[in-house]
Amino acid sequence: MAAEYILTLSCPNRPGIVAAVAEAIFQYGGNIRDAQQYDDQAATRFFTRIMLDDAGNLNLDGLKAEMAKVAERFSMQWAIRDRSQKRRVMLLVSKFDHCLADILYRWRIGELPMVPTAIISNHPLATYPHLDFTGIPFFHMPISKESKPEQEAQIWKLVQETETDLVVLARYMQILSDDLAGKLAGRCINIHHSFLPGFKGAKPYHQAHARGVKLIGATAHYVTADLDEGPIIEQDVERISHKDTPDDLVRQGRDIERRVLSRALTWHLEDRVLMNGSRTVVFRD
Amino acid sequence: MAAEYILTLSCPNRPGIVAAVAEAIFQYGGNIRDAQQYDDQAATRFFTRIMLDDAGNLNLDGLKAEMAKVAERFSMQWAIRDRSQKRRVMLLVSKFDHCLADILYRWRIGELPMVPTAIISNHPLATYPHLDFTGIPFFHMPISKESKPEQEAQIWKLVQETETDLVVLARYMQILSDDLAGKLAGRCINIHHSFLPGFKGAKPYHQAHARGVKLIGATAHYVTADLDEGPIIEQDVERISHKDTPDDLVRQGRDIERRVLSRALTWHLEDRVLMNGSRTVVFRD
Amino acid sequence: MAAEYILTLSCPNRPGIVAAVAEAIFQYGGNIRDAQQYDDQAATRFFTRIMLDDAGNLNLDGLKAEMAKVAERFSMQWAIRDRSQKRRVMLLVSKFDHCLADILYRWRIGELPMVPTAIISNHPLATYPHLDFTGIPFFHMPISKESKPEQEAQIWKLVQETETDLVVLARYMQILSDDLAGKLAGRCINIHHSFLPGFKGAKPYHQAHARGVKLIGATAHYVTADLDEGPIIEQDVERISHKDTPDDLVRQGRDIERRVLSRALTWHLEDRVLMNGSRTVVFRD
Amino acid sequence: MAAEYILTLSCPNRPGIVAAVAEAIFQYGGNIRDAQQYDDQAATRFFTRIMLDDAGNLNLDGLKAEMAKVAERFSMQWAIRDRSQKRRVMLLVSKFDHCLADILYRWRIGELPMVPTAIISNHPLATYPHLDFTGIPFFHMPISKESKPEQEAQIWKLVQETETDLVVLARYMQILSDDLAGKLAGRCINIHHSFLPGFKGAKPYHQAHARGVKLIGATAHYVTADLDEGPIIEQDVERISHKDTPDDLVRQGRDIERRVLSRALTWHLEDRVLMNGSRTVVFRD
Repeated sequence: MAAEYILTLSCPNRPGIVAAVAEAIFQYGGNIRDAQQYDDQAATRFFTRIMLDDAGNLNLDGLKAEMAKVAERFSMQWAIRDRSQKRRVMLLVSKFDHCLADILYRWRIGELPMVPTAIISNHPLATYPHLDFTGIPFFHMPISKESKPEQEAQIWKLVQETETDLVVLARYMQILSDDLAGKLAGRCINIHHSFLPGFKGAKPYHQAHARGVKLIGATAHYVTADLDEGPIIEQDVERISHKDTPDDLVRQGRDIERRVLSRALTWHLEDRVLMNGSRTVVFRD
Repeated sequence: MAAEYILTLSCPNRPGIVAAVAEAIFQYGGNIRDAQQYDDQAATRFFTRIMLDDAGNLNLDGLKAEMAKVAERFSMQWAIRDRSQKRRVMLLVSKFDHCLADILYRWRIGELPMVPTAIISNHPLATYPHLDFTGIPFFHMPISKESKPEQEAQIWKLVQETETDLVVLARYMQILSDDLAGKLAGRCINIHHSFLPGFKGAKPYHQAHARGVKLIGATAHYVTADLDEGPIIEQDVERISHKDTPDDLVRQGRDIERRVLSRALTWHLEDRVLMNGSRTVVFRD
Repeated sequence: MAAEYILTLSCPNRPGIVAAVAEAIFQYGGNIRDAQQYDDQAATRFFTRIMLDDAGNLNLDGLKAEMAKVAERFSMQWAIRDRSQKRRVMLLVSKFDHCLADILYRWRIGELPMVPTAIISNHPLATYPHLDFTGIPFFHMPISKESKPEQEAQIWKLVQETETDLVVLARYMQILSDDLAGKLAGRCINIHHSFLPGFKGAKPYHQAHARGVKLIGATAHYVTADLDEGPIIEQDVERISHKDTPDDLVRQGRDIERRVLSRALTWHLEDRVLMNGSRTVVFRD
Repeated sequence: MAAEYILTLSCPNRPGIVAAVAEAIFQYGGNIRDAQQYDDQAATRFFTRIMLDDAGNLNLDGLKAEMAKVAERFSMQWAIRDRSQKRRVMLLVSKFDHCLADILYRWRIGELPMVPTAIISNHPLATYPHLDFTGIPFFHMPISKESKPEQEAQIWKLVQETETDLVVLARYMQILSDDLAGKLAGRCINIHHSFLPGFKGAKPYHQAHARGVKLIGATAHYVTADLDEGPIIEQDVERISHKDTPDDLVRQGRDIERRVLSRALTWHLEDRVLMNGSRTVVFRD
């Protein structure tokens, strides 16, 4: 198969952007295989994701140099990535391992284009007797109020050492400090077990039960210093009934959480998520 | 078709309830056609809805007298209703008439077992040139901050005169006073254009857009003095995308609102909704 | 608001298409507001839908002339349409009027960008006492096995006289002859009351009940001579239960049918549906 | 927690059934915790599922003896099961292990009340390096056209030796002979990767792609001699787009398949599925 590249960019909107980019790609031997765009009229900002392949005579360095000029002209934020260069992903987990198990399964059968760099838990390895961590370093990093700064320093050191591109809080159940959240801005995804903005904070399924809602949900979002307020990537819900106890909601919620997180992760890994202020642009397939 | 009756009841849970009720029905010639029950273990409270018909020799007065004794014994709240006696429903509307149009259509083709007693709007009749109000009295009741008490007195008077059982706020866009909300407790349904408890108050679609959620919803609930906090009867959602402007959400929301309100209304009319504190028990079909 | 145009095209895929089209638009003063594309790798065919507006100096005739050259070069099928030129739509209906009522309501509040040219029914006007046909000519065209050729000739004559662009079979319940289906190829949409290809032919809800499926659905498709085999535009389903009788399915189906048909109709009116052999490309918003 | 029992029964409908059963339960010290019923008016047949617990003085043998009398009187098919006696389940799998992985995970965290008796595959153990089969005997039983009778004899022998109650074809990809299907009637569940009755037989995702449907689905059903025609327990669907290749459908389908199969399995294990001719009654929670 021909090498494939993903070009993503955003810039203030004005006529001629598509023509300039398409011309550059064509001129340097690229073939546009897929393209999606979004013109935020309120913010007058333009976003696009282009998948291109080598039609036989792609001059990648030439294209990059040309794109740099185009980007200069249109004040673009842009990136181009070789699809075969998989992102490096660190997984943080607590004792609830359903999202972790799901991610590992999908990764092993080839659904998730990523390289797991580490699994970090505040619980010991023995917590996961039935999961197969073969090939992924596991780190037990217990955490207490006192040790939190130190534990986070360890995490950050590992992120750097392993050249991790993305951190996934797969039901990690710990709140990152503003400092670490800041360092991981735009590359740390959390799964919150409610349909935000309803039921922020702790025990959302119990809150949902108490309020008597008829659907429960989950939300995958980028982590920011502002708890449960980060840019939302994906959400989903399922119908519940008056018969469901908080424990039933926790059980049903597991299915929603793993589905929502795996979608958000997939889209991030495929460069489908662009930041638009406190919101996201998601170029779904 | 044989006459059909709906028996609903709730009481503190203890053994023997079903046996006592089923025995009473059998003894007085009734045939149980459908029954649903719910045992709230946390509240130790029992709820049931039973549809029975006349198996040939139903003694309704006898059954009622017997049920009164059973109810006394088990401290039941109960009611029995002849399905052919349709509930009398008053519709309050503002200039957004999509829910009203939907309810009227469903009523005319026989989907909604009700008798419309009146349509009240704070806009004049000419606002609705394409809706057919044939057979339903229309009342234009303008409202201002000053005239609100008087306008609500008019509404309440009409509720009484028309022997209205249920008031439906079909996008009425006005907040009932605590006084009127109290008078209509348990028999006034509102449609709120968000997935509560997210986005309470005004302009929920604009709030949803600003927050960047990926699904929008609507909520049908009983009206209480506590705004947007009444017992929820039904909710539903639909997927949106980053491309949708607040106006797009308003448009998509119309479909969700009319669907959610018509379901809640149907269930109320069929005695499928029982109150359980600040929540509802909904015996869906 | 600036004038807006929709450009749709398909052609054999090869490098340079996007560059050529985007360059033409830019050169003649157009601004690309939205663009979606699809590259069918199996068929090596490229599809795109571009919404452009006048950035201040659009030379539409120049753009059309340039596009004609580009189209020649790439063997394109293409069209450009002024969004303000609404399509002319004829509605065919039988006694089941839920889809018709829904379409009329959406049209009147401005959701559907179309001009209704006629409503044709095989039942008399008195069948629809509660629908408001104001401003739309109504034609009663009864049909029998013998009169079918003549009745279809009448329909076809009216299509021509009214310059109808699209015919919608809104639960018309009659099968078009191969001849008329052929004349209306690509511009006649039918709503079938099942999730095709399951339950083709008559009484699909009864078939669904007999088979014991757990979801029922509806399908909007272009009409072809091959009954229930035309290119599918949209489908949707809803959950049912063992309790539902065929009549219950008919009732629930009405909601699915009107939802599915109105979506398909909207997408057609907005040039979002392109034909790809016996399948459709649907550029959803 | 008090011991809990599930009573399921069906019989020709006539007045007095509920009263007789509820009276028997009450008399012998049982407490009805949940009850669902269905009256098939077309078949004049009554179905119920009752969950009861020991209110302190349950006489189980007495209740069983009394129920035998009631069953005689009403020509009932009935069963009562101690919820703590988990069903014994055999899992048959091919090289596609997503359903198996999902079932094992759910079982290990306590979601599925069952005892796995064996995993049988026509592929060797090494096919599943990342699944943890600890505690479950694995059997490699290759199959060819010639060896099929012998292989099925092995399976049947193992079913008997392990006292297996239920066989789950978790993407087993082999068609059972009429003989084995007959022996396992009502206790063998298959997951078919289409929304039946659409796309029966082989390669349903390729069929779905070729037809251009807009939703794909999966169906869990009891296995009968009549291929893909067994009583349906559960179905679900997901939206796809024109962009999806058959391979994309296979990938998306995995999520639907595992969701649908785990629900059907859960309901069977909880005695929520009753047979009604060629259809099922499913008393969902």
